[in-house]
Amino acid sequence: MTSPHEYVEQLARAARQASRRLVAVSADDRSRALAAYARELRASRRRILEANANDVDAAQAAGLAPALVERLRLDERRVETIARGVEQIAAQPDPVGETIESLTRPDGLRIEKRRVPIGVILFFYESRPNVTADAAALCIKSGNAVILRGGKEALHSNRTIVSCLGSALGTQHSALLDAVQFIDNPDRALVPILLKLDKFIDVVIPRGGESLIRAVVAESTIPVLKHFTGNCHLYIDASARDMGRMVRDVCVNAKTSYPGGAVCNAVEHLLFHRDAAALVPAVCQDLAARGVTIRGDDRVCALYAAAEAATPQDWETEYLSLTIGIKIVDSLDEAIEHVNDHGSHHTDGILSASREAIEQFVTRVDSASVMVNASTRLADGGEYGLGAEIGISTDKLHARGPMGAADLTTYKWVVTGDGHVRA
Amino acid sequence: MTSPHEYVEQLARAARQASRRLVAVSADDRSRALAAYARELRASRRRILEANANDVDAAQAAGLAPALVERLRLDERRVETIARGVEQIAAQPDPVGETIESLTRPDGLRIEKRRVPIGVILFFYESRPNVTADAAALCIKSGNAVILRGGKEALHSNRTIVSCLGSALGTQHSALLDAVQFIDNPDRALVPILLKLDKFIDVVIPRGGESLIRAVVAESTIPVLKHFTGNCHLYIDASARDMGRMVRDVCVNAKTSYPGGAVCNAVEHLLFHRDAAALVPAVCQDLAARGVTIRGDDRVCALYAAAEAATPQDWETEYLSLTIGIKIVDSLDEAIEHVNDHGSHHTDGILSASREAIEQFVTRVDSASVMVNASTRLADGGEYGLGAEIGISTDKLHARGPMGAADLTTYKWVVTGDGHVRA
Repeated sequence: MTSPHEYVEQLARAARQASRRLVAVSADDRSRALAAYARELRASRRRILEANANDVDAAQAAGLAPALVERLRLDERRVETIARGVEQIAAQPDPVGETIESLTRPDGLRIEKRRVPIGVILFFYESRPNVTADAAALCIKSGNAVILRGGKEALHSNRTIVSCLGSALGTQHSALLDAVQFIDNPDRALVPILLKLDKFIDVVIPRGGESLIRAVVAESTIPVLKHFTGNCHLYIDASARDMGRMVRDVCVNAKTSYPGGAVCNAVEHLLFHRDAAALVPAVCQDLAARGVTIRGDDRVCALYAAAEAATPQDWETEYLSLTIGIKIVDSLDEAIEHVNDHGSHHTDGILSASREAIEQFVTRVDSASVMVNASTRLADGGEYGLGAEIGISTDKLHARGPMGAADLTTYKWVVTGDGHVRA
Repeated sequence: MTSPHEYVEQLARAARQASRRLVAVSADDRSRALAAYARELRASRRRILEANANDVDAAQAAGLAPALVERLRLDERRVETIARGVEQIAAQPDPVGETIESLTRPDGLRIEKRRVPIGVILFFYESRPNVTADAAALCIKSGNAVILRGGKEALHSNRTIVSCLGSALGTQHSALLDAVQFIDNPDRALVPILLKLDKFIDVVIPRGGESLIRAVVAESTIPVLKHFTGNCHLYIDASARDMGRMVRDVCVNAKTSYPGGAVCNAVEHLLFHRDAAALVPAVCQDLAARGVTIRGDDRVCALYAAAEAATPQDWETEYLSLTIGIKIVDSLDEAIEHVNDHGSHHTDGILSASREAIEQFVTRVDSASVMVNASTRLADGGEYGLGAEIGISTDKLHARGPMGAADLTTYKWVVTGDGHVRA
């Protein structure tokens, strides 16, 4: 009987060994393996749906909220979408091997910066089973090994989705097969053990609730790329007072285009310049017509009687639901300071006709994505042309905002001489 | 009387506020401020040397090792070198503002990835006072605020070097002045408090001993860019058996070109392919003639009688002194595995005439710098053309190997539409 320590260490060691062999697997072999994986996912859809039905039944029996059960549920169409996602990742350009920079010095020493896989990635995610296939495919595509730790509600679905990679590869390509290590055990005690294995794991990417991410940051001796909350804002500038149609459309889209508003790039707060406050009632009516609850400051409540009074806590809150906070500000400066002080630096936007206000906002707002006359919902790897994303980073190091396969790479310096020494 | 908590929080808050204002300071203003700083450093050399004499006296009275006292000591020539370093950083191309990538979608949405400062950097370093000016200049150049925490032995020197920035800027440019926050208090209790201020600080860069770095990683809720040990290797391939002159020159340079070998890119271990073992005695003699102590495995001890017997612990050790470990391996594979398993992924090299062996080594050795027929000592920001370096990263995220001013930047996505929404 292996102990939890032995179990995760074995798994992490296997991932490290796979990553060492993966650097010698060609881009073509990696893409072909993903194409085979996609075929196997399609061929196994009955098996996947059976496993998923187990998870859905257990989740319902445990009284999981209906919205969460929906995120967990697969059907034939969704399995097809998963397989197609893997094919799209397979078809992307190879993210590794490129020479990023090079120079040859007058003394003949050649210095190259070459793009290479990061190595071993530990990925925490929640209950959507499609993320399992996406993450496995993105890591294989970029030449990385990955340790997958999904939500316990999706354990049967995830196990089956991972097993299709084994069926697809058979006994060939053992480096690719070992590259995907799945933690087939929901025990939470495994997490702190994993987070100390900096000898085998190069980066942790946690996607999930704020408390999970804070716990990972506190425990981990491995570098973390955080995918934190999206307390996103739209600022409606004074100069937008005559852009009523655009303001209404963008605000409604930013809040309601994802079901229930339960997505990190949905807008959570609107800041109206006082000179554009005349737009408040129409925007509130549009939102209310879509089922959105409005929480406003005093001035908003005076303009729109159905608004609830916001408390200071509101401005710090990512509702992740059909609730929105609305505030009137006296200046562009106040808006920028509010966003920098209360936001989560994920995605914030300005609606404005003033080139100067836009320039100020874009320069001074310290967010991963700054949207100008566009919906916050467009902050997404697919929309930005990155292909599938592993998540949206709220960190400033390494990768910021939507992260695609290329963001799972690092570089090495290759220095070639002919007996060169240091003077 | 402010508490330690209040002291560091005030300081970190001031740095954050400065970083918010710095994004609006032009590249020209940043460079001009650095030129004024360099002039002031020169003009204040007497004051700096007096402060330094205090530090040196105290260090000697405390019985600090002579090599460490030397690292601490300044003279007129060294102050001139510090001022010239600041001027060189001022003259470098501006690292921020560049558009890294951009695309305009068929629907007219424009997506740009723009290079911006990281924000606030917390920098730990040891007792060389020149690092104070270098780090302040690199951060100002890249538009960042920095919190400097130097070695306590250099407190008077560092305080004076930082104060020259204030004298240079006078009352103008308060954003630039506040951008450099100096921790004028050697109390170690401040460190864990600082490492929890993720609200104000974006990245910690610790440069120093392994125990300092491990403590920072364990305590910090702020992302860390580690500058760890350099357990560097040179592998002498079978095909190098006829390259005796180059092998001897490169090995001697890699071990002895920095005084006492006390530098992270000095080589610590040589791995000879058994077919190149005939070179072992000559290389050992050359090293011994420079005062290097040889620790060898059985086969090395049989070839060179003056070698001491190495223990397993030797292969894990960064000696940082004039000691070297030498081992004979049976294959290229064994060499690559030894480097990956026992090295610190800092800088490792191959000496070889075989294109195929070089390709294998370069692809499979997982190190920040891989040297081919060149000394490990060449792994350095200056040698790579980066200008001054803030350190040499042993992390894989964000920046790997020598880090210059451009590595103190991140990016933001700027997305510009005309009422664009998500479908």
